[in-house]
Amino acid sequence: MKLQLALDVGSLDECMALLLEVSEFIDIVEVGTPLIIRYGMEPVRLIKATYPNLKVIADAKIMDAGELEADHCFEAGADLVSVLGVSHDATISGVVKSARKFGKEVLVDMICVADLKQRSVELEQLGVDYICVHTAFDVQSTGANPLSELETVNQAITTSKSAVAGGVKLATIDAIVEEGASIIVVGGAIAQAENPKEMASKIKGRFKYDLS
Amino acid sequence: MKLQLALDVGSLDECMALLLEVSEFIDIVEVGTPLIIRYGMEPVRLIKATYPNLKVIADAKIMDAGELEADHCFEAGADLVSVLGVSHDATISGVVKSARKFGKEVLVDMICVADLKQRSVELEQLGVDYICVHTAFDVQSTGANPLSELETVNQAITTSKSAVAGGVKLATIDAIVEEGASIIVVGGAIAQAENPKEMASKIKGRFKYDLS
Repeated sequence: MKLQLALDVGSLDECMALLLEVSEFIDIVEVGTPLIIRYGMEPVRLIKATYPNLKVIADAKIMDAGELEADHCFEAGADLVSVLGVSHDATISGVVKSARKFGKEVLVDMICVADLKQRSVELEQLGVDYICVHTAFDVQSTGANPLSELETVNQAITTSKSAVAGGVKLATIDAIVEEGASIIVVGGAIAQAENPKEMASKIKGRFKYDLS
Repeated sequence: MKLQLALDVGSLDECMALLLEVSEFIDIVEVGTPLIIRYGMEPVRLIKATYPNLKVIADAKIMDAGELEADHCFEAGADLVSVLGVSHDATISGVVKSARKFGKEVLVDMICVADLKQRSVELEQLGVDYICVHTAFDVQSTGANPLSELETVNQAITTSKSAVAGGVKLATIDAIVEEGASIIVVGGAIAQAENPKEMASKIKGRFKYDLS
């Protein structure tokens, strides 16, 4: 069970300052889509150079040109790349092909996927590593949360691993840990906390670890 | 009817060199998703500074955090931003809100949208400017092309405008011009041509212009 910190808001400098505060509690650093839009792969290179022991995921949310776009992320040093579950199978396969070339991993973002169960089975056959349920930022204010979606994916997968993202916070972490996921993504709950280091420590303290 | 050149492949230097060759035939320059992943908004700033009379679209293919991500693109100088038709309505609305703040425009990429007709009607109600049918790069080798999808969208829309992308080339341009679209996107057919300038001129020569 790994804690992934999503860096989505603020400038690159601000994100690096936040990371300096909380890095000891983090397993994977997410260069969020808004950061990629602003800075391209610069944050990936900078974070890998500064924290060589942390994994970095480029949350590129790839929708087309899977191999080409994933190549750009892995060439910059990303350990994982995200692709959208709503994309064509050929796009997913392109990202998987790129990951295999580089010895890296693929996370599928299931945002807006209509049939989670069926798509999870298909994605597993395409060779992806992680299937990530994701309550969109833009609908979190409706009270939607990813727990029941996580259950659906956990029941559907056999060889791949699950991940969960979207509004995860201290008040909801226990239920998610109980359900189980290989990666738990937290963004605003740490980044916007009054004391980000304390919050990261508290959230990480609720995790269970796979001792196998 | 405007010609949009998609810059997707190669380094930023190579894309700028291509643009220098063909800019006289181009109305809109697309900073393609692979370029955004590599360079962030740098190409948008550079192209606007070099060609102030050309429109620039940031093909960010936004899927979440619509207002935030579109803000980043418009702040960099983009005239249009793309959002995915498969995203939540709230995301589309966020991008539209951002565009209205900046006095700019929104193009919806319909890649992988299941019901083009119904989604076009919904998108129009959300206030988008362009609805763009798009045959994914990753499935173009199957012979798929966007003409019939363009017909579907043209029949569905009343206030918004249509656009078309995905493998458009000299051999298919006449049928598309005949069907009609406000923006025709061409990428590889110009970028990979033996003589890109001559090809851009030929393709532009087939366009019809709205004299109204």
